[in-house]
Amino acid sequence: MARHLITAAAQMGPIGRSETRIDTVRRLVAMMREAKARGCELVVFPELALTTFFPRWMIEDEAELDSFYEAEMPCAATMPLFDEAQRLGIGFNLGYAELVEEGGVKRRFNTSILVDASGRIIGKYRKVHLPGHDAPQAGRAFQHLEKRYFEPGDLGFPVFRGFGGVMGMAICNDRRWPETYRVMGLQGVDMVMLGYNTPFDHTGDEAVNSLTLFHNHLSMQAGAYQNATWVVGTAKCGTEEGSRMGGQSVIIAPSGEIVAQAVTVEDEVITAKCDLDMGRIYKETIFNFARHRRPEHYRLIVERTGAILPPEG
Amino acid sequence: MARHLITAAAQMGPIGRSETRIDTVRRLVAMMREAKARGCELVVFPELALTTFFPRWMIEDEAELDSFYEAEMPCAATMPLFDEAQRLGIGFNLGYAELVEEGGVKRRFNTSILVDASGRIIGKYRKVHLPGHDAPQAGRAFQHLEKRYFEPGDLGFPVFRGFGGVMGMAICNDRRWPETYRVMGLQGVDMVMLGYNTPFDHTGDEAVNSLTLFHNHLSMQAGAYQNATWVVGTAKCGTEEGSRMGGQSVIIAPSGEIVAQAVTVEDEVITAKCDLDMGRIYKETIFNFARHRRPEHYRLIVERTGAILPPEG
Repeated sequence: MARHLITAAAQMGPIGRSETRIDTVRRLVAMMREAKARGCELVVFPELALTTFFPRWMIEDEAELDSFYEAEMPCAATMPLFDEAQRLGIGFNLGYAELVEEGGVKRRFNTSILVDASGRIIGKYRKVHLPGHDAPQAGRAFQHLEKRYFEPGDLGFPVFRGFGGVMGMAICNDRRWPETYRVMGLQGVDMVMLGYNTPFDHTGDEAVNSLTLFHNHLSMQAGAYQNATWVVGTAKCGTEEGSRMGGQSVIIAPSGEIVAQAVTVEDEVITAKCDLDMGRIYKETIFNFARHRRPEHYRLIVERTGAILPPEG
Repeated sequence: MARHLITAAAQMGPIGRSETRIDTVRRLVAMMREAKARGCELVVFPELALTTFFPRWMIEDEAELDSFYEAEMPCAATMPLFDEAQRLGIGFNLGYAELVEEGGVKRRFNTSILVDASGRIIGKYRKVHLPGHDAPQAGRAFQHLEKRYFEPGDLGFPVFRGFGGVMGMAICNDRRWPETYRVMGLQGVDMVMLGYNTPFDHTGDEAVNSLTLFHNHLSMQAGAYQNATWVVGTAKCGTEEGSRMGGQSVIIAPSGEIVAQAVTVEDEVITAKCDLDMGRIYKETIFNFARHRRPEHYRLIVERTGAILPPEG
């Protein structure tokens, strides 16, 4: 039996700082309805899809900071999204800032969840590769304080049975790291859902910044191909509170080919009919991991965090 | 002090089965001279650059098989290449089939060496990721018997100081595996030299085969970018003994951009002025491994060879 999954990436344009959860959820619901009308069974929303990308600011006031996080999922403001999904019979992947209280200690994660067509949360992922800094950097128009506002994810890269396949999640900067896809590939992942918010000024170097969209696709296409998995990359993009962020949301086949791409930097739904068995030919031939991988030569990948150069001659 | 290394990829057209080492070395020397005349300090030759790509045939006769291997490097036939390199003051990377006798046992590797401008071998690599099969497959016009004719490399992915930087090697199918680049990236590699012989029929699936050249570049560009290293990919290509092989040799910058590309499927020299410090901006920001990598979540990469799917729900 063919395993087709008609999938949407629901790209978002900017979310202003003053926009409420109710405003934002209304936008998500509208795109969910469009996805359903176009035959989709799953819709992938961006990273931190409920608020503006607040790590661009140094926020000292704790209550103000907390206002960007979800202490409950769903809560009253996000329940309409779950209700609508259940009513339509469509699943979704949603990124948000997660606040957990454990023994009086606040823990903060950059999180995404996978919700099935009955409205049930069947998977959770917490972003492992946090970019940016834990303190403000001088001379930047916009900060990138993810290392301040989030802990690195503590769930690894789990996969989940659902939607007829093996589903995985990653978030934004995770996409640049081949380990992200490989750990899921080693669990037989069929589709990686990945939301992002990617400002163009992330390195402070103009030559590098000009390649932001190229690097976005390059990383996801390679991850898809090298693990024979679908990758659905969904942006929040456009100029948000003065910060320019890249769009070009894509659905990528296990061949590494882009099969759908957004062309605006606004709310935009793209869809593709994804054959979850398309990766099989790769998984059985050139990417038959059991036959070809040589982990005895990969040990540095886990034994070493930073690069260590050989001694000078 | 800027670390510029003017580098050539010396792509080769086909080598017929009847061509001798002397014929082939003459072609290599001609390209080495061209590279030198164009200002190069290093020339990268293909995988198995001294003979036809013999793994396409089932060869039962041991003496015949041995004739494709080098028991000595250099030997009389290959010495002119070393002599010319020394005379010109140019280094080179050369791929060849290596035969080693150890205690009366023959060991066979798909090998490459790095030779400095004084003609001295300063590095050796043996291909880790052998594609293909160890026995003939029915119904194929051409076999791919690398798993029969070679042992997997036993040297890991070493790097070598030379040419003003940290130099690494990989061979053909290694380029599809992100672990290849990452293990060298964790040793601060500045340039990965990579020769290949890539027939278009390597999976037996037409849709996959039609993407051979796309996959070639995608893998090398991602490996370059994700490890902020130069990658020099050099093909042996064209129609060799009836088998079509892909060309498009490239020099790829640490940005993942292709800065030079061959446009024939014949002997062709391409060159680029490679700034070995170009990767620094990446290594200090988004690919600062020490700050961003999370090896505690990568363990499956070494703990598992093949994929294991989660239990069905």
